[in-house]
Amino acid sequence: MSTDETLPLFLRACFNQPTERTPVWLMRQAGRYMAEYRAIRKDVDFWGLCKSPELCREVTLQPIDAFGMDAAIIFSDLLVPLPPMGAEVTFGKGMGPVIEPRIDTPADVDRLIHPDVPATMGYVADAVRATVAALPADVPLIGFAGAPFTLAGYLIEGQGSKTWMKTKAFLHAHPEAADKLFTLLTDVVIELLNMQIDAGARAVQIFDSWVGALDPEDYRRWGLRYTKRIVDGVRRPGVPVIVFAKGTGTYLDIVAECGADVLGVDWTLPLDRARALVGPNVALQGNLDPGRLLGPWDALEPAIDRLLDSAGDGTGHIFNLGHGIDRTTDPAQVKRLVDHVRTASAKRRG
Amino acid sequence: MSTDETLPLFLRACFNQPTERTPVWLMRQAGRYMAEYRAIRKDVDFWGLCKSPELCREVTLQPIDAFGMDAAIIFSDLLVPLPPMGAEVTFGKGMGPVIEPRIDTPADVDRLIHPDVPATMGYVADAVRATVAALPADVPLIGFAGAPFTLAGYLIEGQGSKTWMKTKAFLHAHPEAADKLFTLLTDVVIELLNMQIDAGARAVQIFDSWVGALDPEDYRRWGLRYTKRIVDGVRRPGVPVIVFAKGTGTYLDIVAECGADVLGVDWTLPLDRARALVGPNVALQGNLDPGRLLGPWDALEPAIDRLLDSAGDGTGHIFNLGHGIDRTTDPAQVKRLVDHVRTASAKRRG
Repeated sequence: MSTDETLPLFLRACFNQPTERTPVWLMRQAGRYMAEYRAIRKDVDFWGLCKSPELCREVTLQPIDAFGMDAAIIFSDLLVPLPPMGAEVTFGKGMGPVIEPRIDTPADVDRLIHPDVPATMGYVADAVRATVAALPADVPLIGFAGAPFTLAGYLIEGQGSKTWMKTKAFLHAHPEAADKLFTLLTDVVIELLNMQIDAGARAVQIFDSWVGALDPEDYRRWGLRYTKRIVDGVRRPGVPVIVFAKGTGTYLDIVAECGADVLGVDWTLPLDRARALVGPNVALQGNLDPGRLLGPWDALEPAIDRLLDSAGDGTGHIFNLGHGIDRTTDPAQVKRLVDHVRTASAKRRG
Repeated sequence: MSTDETLPLFLRACFNQPTERTPVWLMRQAGRYMAEYRAIRKDVDFWGLCKSPELCREVTLQPIDAFGMDAAIIFSDLLVPLPPMGAEVTFGKGMGPVIEPRIDTPADVDRLIHPDVPATMGYVADAVRATVAALPADVPLIGFAGAPFTLAGYLIEGQGSKTWMKTKAFLHAHPEAADKLFTLLTDVVIELLNMQIDAGARAVQIFDSWVGALDPEDYRRWGLRYTKRIVDGVRRPGVPVIVFAKGTGTYLDIVAECGADVLGVDWTLPLDRARALVGPNVALQGNLDPGRLLGPWDALEPAIDRLLDSAGDGTGHIFNLGHGIDRTTDPAQVKRLVDHVRTASAKRRG
């Protein structure tokens, strides 16, 4: 593997090139655990924040300024595509999203719209442009979108779910309508991600947050098939594609068939086991349990060290959590974590 | 491996002995998906049902009479130990359980009571006795209890959770108080399971439904340690112990260290991969996705066949789901499933 030293550290790690230390960023690193974020959110509702490029830039930069992560991720939401497709999304106080009308029958799929992505979601591109202009040159911006299973799950359940049983019932009872729905979502997600790349995103992440509810056979049919199309549909030289299919650690080798440059891994699968499953040619991103940040530093530090040890010589590892930061996390823990990953991983290389 | 042909089929499979076909039972096989169950529940609330040995016997027998499973499981609830310990449990309409007062601080652990198990939970033993007397001799009754992590999770969150973040925060911030809590729960669970064995249960299952929220290191500390104590504390000749730690497929080899006779497996880990992780000396129970029962038979039947194929020659396999039957399941699908497992697995042996 050759190294392109003109590339930022994060991108070199995404392309599985040797690095002088392990890059680190954290899912949901811009969010409620930061007082600076809460200060902005008190004057604007969630959609208002998502739709303001200036405020998105501001909150996206907050953790970079405070903690110095090696990558930023544009502040936005997985559910951005749903309202333009004809499904309103509201966030109640202390509740997850509610989607109306939900998809209950094949006829409901036919009523969904293929939206004009730049016209209806252009605010995401504006936010990317504003943020890229303000970020340090060595901190790439990650664009993102949800994967079809996760988006379809919200559309079919009308909300989040522990079991996604309505979704599974729909897939099994109406496979043709489900394929039509997943194909539409695939096309929209490809456009949404390409728009972000065109606006300056230097990597993209596809979040399939709930696809781990499927068995391996159903994952092939309802996860991998569309994820692979998305990976192919957004591929550009120099822009790595990260696929995070949470909860699929028992069949990460199947997920790897999507062709992503980087696979997200949650904390249930140690990185050495992940590496054994997927081989040497893909980078791995993860995989600390965000729950560990809620404990004291003297328990967190050895957990970080174990994680770095589980990544072999550290090549092709991007340090992250296995899910978003919890809103009750002490920002001081985040600061210590980022600093420790930098110094401890550099020491391991030396 | 020798075969004791006087033992019921289910028990022989639990002890990893050759069987003429694969035994089958389904978690939550007595429940809302059956009209016969709903007819009883309309006149009695959930706790009223749990505390009536006659009604427990009746609903426990309903699926055996209707579908002919190879084992029955006593109708009861994981949360039975909590009220006698000082935490009331209520079930709202269409909601999960609510536990009050919840455990928020180490001092709250000190307020918990070590209850007199026969005096406060004797209704479970009465239900076991009544049910055993009514069951066919070749259908063993399974007793059960929740594992400490799962019970502690409800106590600390005050309800179910997707992430169990409050629970993790408590474990990491207050490990001594957590150990005291888990030790108390371990002792109570051992007594509750032994009481069921004394009353006639011929196998016991320990449900650790939510422990898969932990990473492997935390599983060793907060799952395995206490589960192993329970396995040791209920071991009797001829009474197999089943441990179902849902969501732990990426580290099932660690779960196996608890010494259970049978390990439950959820649908994310194919049985051949499970076998490779745990070796030949433990039986495996599972692992169909209950979501598959919501689809048409022509999709369900090949999934059952694939599952039987993944169990090698079928020795040491007990057919089950990877979680409880969904309440929207068509009972006709359950009938077909049980019949098909019987005939298709017998054909494979021949």
